[in-house]
Amino acid sequence: MTKYVYLFREGDASMRDLLGGKGAGLAEMTRAGAPVPPGFTITTEACNAYSETGRFPDGLWDEVLAALSDVERAAGKRFGDATNPLLLSVRSGARFSMPGMMDTVLNLGLNAAAIRGLAEASGDERFAADAYRRFVQLFGKIVLGVDGNRFEQVLETAKGPGRQDTDLAADELRQIAGQYKEVIRTDANTDFPDDPYDQLKAAIAAVFRSWNGRRAIDYRRLNKISDSLGTAVNVQTMVFGNLGNTSATGVAFSRNPATGEAVLYGEYLVNAQGEDVVAGIRTPRPIAEMAREMPDVYEQFAAISRQLELHYRDVQDMEFTVERGRLYMLQTRTGKRTGAAAVKIAVDMVAEGVIDRNTAIQRVEPASLDQLLHPMLDPKARLTAPFLTRGLPASPGAATGKVVFHPDLAEERAKAGEEVILVRTETAPEDFHGMVAAQAVLTARGGMTSHAAVVARGMGKPCVAGASALTVNYKEHFCESDGQRVLEGDYITLDGSTGEVFLGRIDTSEPELSADFRTLMGWADEVRKIGVRANADTPKDARTARGFGAEGIGLCRTEHMFFEGDRIDAVREMILAETIAERRLALAKIEPYQKEDFVRIFREMDGLPVTIRTLDPPLHEFLPHEAPEMRALADQLGISFDQVKARVEGLREANPMLGFRGCRLGIVYPEITEMQARAIFSAAKECAAAGIDVQPEIMIPLVGMPEELRRQEQLVRQVARDVGWDRYLVGTMIELPRAALVAARIAEHAEFFSFGTNDLTQTTLGISRDDSGHFVPKYIESRLYADDPFQVVDQEGVGELVRMGVERGRSRKPGLKTGVCGEHGGDPASVMFFATIGVDYVSCSPYRVPIARLAAAHAALGEASRDK
Amino acid sequence: MTKYVYLFREGDASMRDLLGGKGAGLAEMTRAGAPVPPGFTITTEACNAYSETGRFPDGLWDEVLAALSDVERAAGKRFGDATNPLLLSVRSGARFSMPGMMDTVLNLGLNAAAIRGLAEASGDERFAADAYRRFVQLFGKIVLGVDGNRFEQVLETAKGPGRQDTDLAADELRQIAGQYKEVIRTDANTDFPDDPYDQLKAAIAAVFRSWNGRRAIDYRRLNKISDSLGTAVNVQTMVFGNLGNTSATGVAFSRNPATGEAVLYGEYLVNAQGEDVVAGIRTPRPIAEMAREMPDVYEQFAAISRQLELHYRDVQDMEFTVERGRLYMLQTRTGKRTGAAAVKIAVDMVAEGVIDRNTAIQRVEPASLDQLLHPMLDPKARLTAPFLTRGLPASPGAATGKVVFHPDLAEERAKAGEEVILVRTETAPEDFHGMVAAQAVLTARGGMTSHAAVVARGMGKPCVAGASALTVNYKEHFCESDGQRVLEGDYITLDGSTGEVFLGRIDTSEPELSADFRTLMGWADEVRKIGVRANADTPKDARTARGFGAEGIGLCRTEHMFFEGDRIDAVREMILAETIAERRLALAKIEPYQKEDFVRIFREMDGLPVTIRTLDPPLHEFLPHEAPEMRALADQLGISFDQVKARVEGLREANPMLGFRGCRLGIVYPEITEMQARAIFSAAKECAAAGIDVQPEIMIPLVGMPEELRRQEQLVRQVARDVGWDRYLVGTMIELPRAALVAARIAEHAEFFSFGTNDLTQTTLGISRDDSGHFVPKYIESRLYADDPFQVVDQEGVGELVRMGVERGRSRKPGLKTGVCGEHGGDPASVMFFATIGVDYVSCSPYRVPIARLAAAHAALGEASRDK
Repeated sequence: MTKYVYLFREGDASMRDLLGGKGAGLAEMTRAGAPVPPGFTITTEACNAYSETGRFPDGLWDEVLAALSDVERAAGKRFGDATNPLLLSVRSGARFSMPGMMDTVLNLGLNAAAIRGLAEASGDERFAADAYRRFVQLFGKIVLGVDGNRFEQVLETAKGPGRQDTDLAADELRQIAGQYKEVIRTDANTDFPDDPYDQLKAAIAAVFRSWNGRRAIDYRRLNKISDSLGTAVNVQTMVFGNLGNTSATGVAFSRNPATGEAVLYGEYLVNAQGEDVVAGIRTPRPIAEMAREMPDVYEQFAAISRQLELHYRDVQDMEFTVERGRLYMLQTRTGKRTGAAAVKIAVDMVAEGVIDRNTAIQRVEPASLDQLLHPMLDPKARLTAPFLTRGLPASPGAATGKVVFHPDLAEERAKAGEEVILVRTETAPEDFHGMVAAQAVLTARGGMTSHAAVVARGMGKPCVAGASALTVNYKEHFCESDGQRVLEGDYITLDGSTGEVFLGRIDTSEPELSADFRTLMGWADEVRKIGVRANADTPKDARTARGFGAEGIGLCRTEHMFFEGDRIDAVREMILAETIAERRLALAKIEPYQKEDFVRIFREMDGLPVTIRTLDPPLHEFLPHEAPEMRALADQLGISFDQVKARVEGLREANPMLGFRGCRLGIVYPEITEMQARAIFSAAKECAAAGIDVQPEIMIPLVGMPEELRRQEQLVRQVARDVGWDRYLVGTMIELPRAALVAARIAEHAEFFSFGTNDLTQTTLGISRDDSGHFVPKYIESRLYADDPFQVVDQEGVGELVRMGVERGRSRKPGLKTGVCGEHGGDPASVMFFATIGVDYVSCSPYRVPIARLAAAHAALGEASRDK
Repeated sequence: MTKYVYLFREGDASMRDLLGGKGAGLAEMTRAGAPVPPGFTITTEACNAYSETGRFPDGLWDEVLAALSDVERAAGKRFGDATNPLLLSVRSGARFSMPGMMDTVLNLGLNAAAIRGLAEASGDERFAADAYRRFVQLFGKIVLGVDGNRFEQVLETAKGPGRQDTDLAADELRQIAGQYKEVIRTDANTDFPDDPYDQLKAAIAAVFRSWNGRRAIDYRRLNKISDSLGTAVNVQTMVFGNLGNTSATGVAFSRNPATGEAVLYGEYLVNAQGEDVVAGIRTPRPIAEMAREMPDVYEQFAAISRQLELHYRDVQDMEFTVERGRLYMLQTRTGKRTGAAAVKIAVDMVAEGVIDRNTAIQRVEPASLDQLLHPMLDPKARLTAPFLTRGLPASPGAATGKVVFHPDLAEERAKAGEEVILVRTETAPEDFHGMVAAQAVLTARGGMTSHAAVVARGMGKPCVAGASALTVNYKEHFCESDGQRVLEGDYITLDGSTGEVFLGRIDTSEPELSADFRTLMGWADEVRKIGVRANADTPKDARTARGFGAEGIGLCRTEHMFFEGDRIDAVREMILAETIAERRLALAKIEPYQKEDFVRIFREMDGLPVTIRTLDPPLHEFLPHEAPEMRALADQLGISFDQVKARVEGLREANPMLGFRGCRLGIVYPEITEMQARAIFSAAKECAAAGIDVQPEIMIPLVGMPEELRRQEQLVRQVARDVGWDRYLVGTMIELPRAALVAARIAEHAEFFSFGTNDLTQTTLGISRDDSGHFVPKYIESRLYADDPFQVVDQEGVGELVRMGVERGRSRKPGLKTGVCGEHGGDPASVMFFATIGVDYVSCSPYRVPIARLAAAHAALGEASRDK
């Protein structure tokens, strides 16, 4: 016959399917010898049997009664006893923690006789009366389904104005319990059960039923949890921390979860119940004080803590109760921790011989490293800082500075030594110099992958994007959010990790990379199989990336260089050229700058590959759009205003994302690609002559037709021959669905593929990243998207195309090198996915390189464990 | 030993690989007993051997000499003879007609002796001298590679001012020939060959070499013709139509290629050579006159024409020469014809028992039907009409009317009975009523699938789009192209089949659908397997579509209805609503209109399915964008101007194509879908009560996530239950790459798929159809795109996704109904592709329905022949 009930001492941690998470934990703690109040778990199979038939399966109740006898023996108390009654808690506990299921019922087993018994045993009549009052209220609400407000009303009326719960006397509490029962009789049309066994039976059935409650079902559907798992029921002896000054209750971590320091960390309250700690009426005391106040208990708890940590080989987050000097462990689970703590704990535990290096690597969430790599706000100061507005946490880190609205002004003030924050409705490539000059960027529009967000992340600068309540008035030099106005020059502070913006200054603390961090990253590098490069457009970015361990540049965008200083003039001249000769003349002016840019980047990346993307953005991004600027440009080039205006108009596009950009520019104006290739190869030659190991990789963007790549490739190779340079690769971005579909034929002309998953996400899902704010947040909220598809790669759609692209490309060219250079290259879940489908490397913002390295190590370890 | 040379009588039509197209044709004609001047063909294999080794293969020359003897015997003349010399023409002739290969060399075989012989035989010394002059010129240019201008200069100098070629005397012609030889000696560094056999050998080698000439290779690469085919060489006896008044030359069709009437159609010139007909100095006479002038020859030619037509079972396009009363056939090939002629000829030939019905169907190019279905310009008047500008032939047909620049004015003038043409920089959905009112539409911007083009095609109205030289000045009410200004109210005429726009009025002729057309379409319907529906948004469109044989509506866009009359006010109110209650209130105002629209459409489509797409376009398309209109709207709704402006601004998108549209609207505002579903089902119920057979199919647009469809489907089904209607389908558009990739899971919630290949093309290829003008024309010109991907489906990319979508959808739901409702549904090549991958039906503009029906029949017949 099926066994439906397991005493805690009969189970263990491996039985989560049968006993649920909580039941397995209590069993394992019992097995480890911790002082757990005795109890038992009813299995998920019993729940499933109940769900099918609507009644307890045969034998279940007998097993419950047998287990209860055992618990009575272990507790030395009897259920429903008139002198020293056993009271029980009844809790649900499924395989996965799941909101919407039944809450806890406490003090089960009380009736008239047992109340007397409890009063006698505790020597406290009021305590016993209050315990019953609480029990009736919880049971009524949770098991019998009476609206909780009905009980609150009774309680409020009884207290009258100005009195607390604690002011109620035993008599009053008894009266209240009586009134509660009246409510139950009226609302639930049933008498409150006096028989403790009836109480227990009803509570167990209620837990079973809650598995098929509306909220639980919804939650399971959204989280793709099978309906057939069922929930377990945990029945456990009650213990009380509120039986005088030798009783207490508390929570503690086995190590400091903020710093990782190996000391007990937590707090406790004397003469209190768990809910009193939560309620915050009394201030709990640091756990260290328990060493003075209850030295024996403290010693015992510290020992148990060490034992559980060794047992579970990880930091434990524990709940305990002391009942009249006796310690009881109520729960233990893996302790959550900050990124810094995770790193320290993992490295320490390896030193202590508790875990091995691979486990240490797996113990640190890659995403949690973000906290270590960026400045943070002073946590106390932020609590009292006046809130201005909130946007998306677009690029992590905190910054304080004076508000400026124009990139030129940002540059000017920064040169004068001021710290400024650039505030714009949204940013465009022409604002780049202002972003370079600013401490941080704040925009009113745009999503997590808007221009501001992408560029800021690339530079490692904090950014809050899409603060939709914010409006910027460029003309009158102020911005406003919910009626609060900020003038140019006013200080603000923003936290790019949370999206919050505050008025005034708040101190920030700079991050320091610890020795433990370096140790852990070293271990990660040893196990990971997928390479990690960085997206870097400037020598400074390249240096940062290298410092963070990047193994090359996976994406060097050439267009940002077009905006620096006077170059933009020549670029505009090139765009406005009417003949190929004029265009070549303008390009010739740009070429020396481009060459110098590449020389400086190659120097930084000595010995590592540098993937350079040829010109990609739509040309109109380089042109002025306001009449005065257009007029100035016309004067400068000696052409008419109308000519400039006509060209600006002519290049205007309804959907620039799907427009005249990428290799389409190089196909229509081959001389642009030619100039860029010449600048790259001349720079390479010059660097090589100076003894630098240069490994340029030329990458053609937005290829859809194999023939596009063939033509651009031929052009690049011709220039290489002309310059006299032969150590380079030519490859392409795969960023259109068509490119992934025809990857086999594209591979004929490519030495590498780099999947541009930003654009591939835009086209595959049909979402403009600039406009995603209109519905993507709502989609995430209502779980239509599990995550923002611009942050975590959409494996089913975009990922499927990447998989196809890799497969089809290699079917024609075995061993074809493949990388990913979208924003996803820095997202742990995405990196792991790319590793599993055979991508050779990912490329991400310099500041995300450590995250990608660690995620890659996780992927390798995950794969190794799957292979076993 | 390989046989390299075939006499005409040794070959036949099946030997095109070996003898080339021309050689096989001459052989077949000879075989059919037509009087072909004797000759022979040197095989493509000989050419390939020559290409490999650079010399004639062993035995070739001997075979040529033997064949030549045979020709001498047949012609009764001898090569190089001093009394009656045989002259030859030498022509290239590959498997496929191919520009860039060697032209014809005529009169080969002339030298001093033969000139005398020719003069003697013809009795015309000047004729002989001129024949030699022409021969030296052609041979020098074509075989020896001398620049043709050099000969023209000599000729011009010799003529002096004011004299024609025909004024030159025999002596002068001889002198000129001598000077030509000097030019050849200087430029080609060789003496002109006197020996006829040397001439022949050189000419044959020149044909072989031209196979690997630059232009021929380029042409083959672009057209994917294999380099290994080689060209044949045709050597044929010369005959002369310029030997007096019993000689003549002409061209004729066996039936009228414009109307299809079964009478000889062509023209001839007495005492002339073929090139004189082309030169246009003398006006040729209709072939009918030959019956009077040369009755015997005419009878003979008419008989041969009938014989060849029966032999080839198709209309023949023939060239002939009469030499001194004797008829020679020089060429016959399948005659090109207009759409109208194609239909008549095909149906007639079935009646005559010449071909069967399936052949008749295959004889008519689906695209050629376009001409039959639209008004055309008077062909004579158009020749002299003043040209204004040119754009893309966006929607076929011709129209004349007064220019108006504003849709409201168009409506006003049209109501007053005027015929107007709406001229806009580009059109947007809010211009719809103006397009309805206008005879035709002209835009300065936008491609073949711009809003103007798509809507105009849907309505069967002529449209010229993207006339890039045109600028429209709305403020001052004029437009301008290349300095020519047209004021509002001026007449223009446009031809949407060619893209031309003329100043002033030109008469147009209305099309009439013939009985033959109906007969042919009936046959097509019998054989085709794929269904044909129409895209129709109005009762009028629905009626037109049904008239053209549509089997249902495959796409009924609901948004156009939103613009009509006052409805737009309620729509704007709905968009500006701040609460769901306000929005429902506004929707309630729209619902009766929507319901009435559907009632009218259902009536038209009694007994046929109607696929209705829920709201698709971005909401900002419904809002005004100019301050005065925004102010008016604010007043009307009793809200502030700033509120309106903020909402308009808030809905602005960088890439609206990838923005907040499609089912995203219905997900964020479910009440919109709900209203539309209610309107549809209430209309269905009302119609059914009136005895109409209603088959509504609700189609959810822009689905990417299966869950999107599931939620919208549930909503629609709930409304159906509420209304009490149960005969309907719910399906989705597959128009995002992701949707095609996850089609299996989407199919779980869909009763049909309709592939929206317009949008799928935009996202798969990354081209905005509104902006494609920036590079797509250049891409087509340089053969990066074989066709405009918005007109002919990109089979490798977009087609692959459609194939995947069909397969994956049916893998989960076998027999899932699938359709295509993009513009490609009306393109013959695309229809054939969709038929082969198992799509159940296509849906296209009403005016393209017959084209799609015929294309579908072609697809079925093509498949049947492949299956054999």
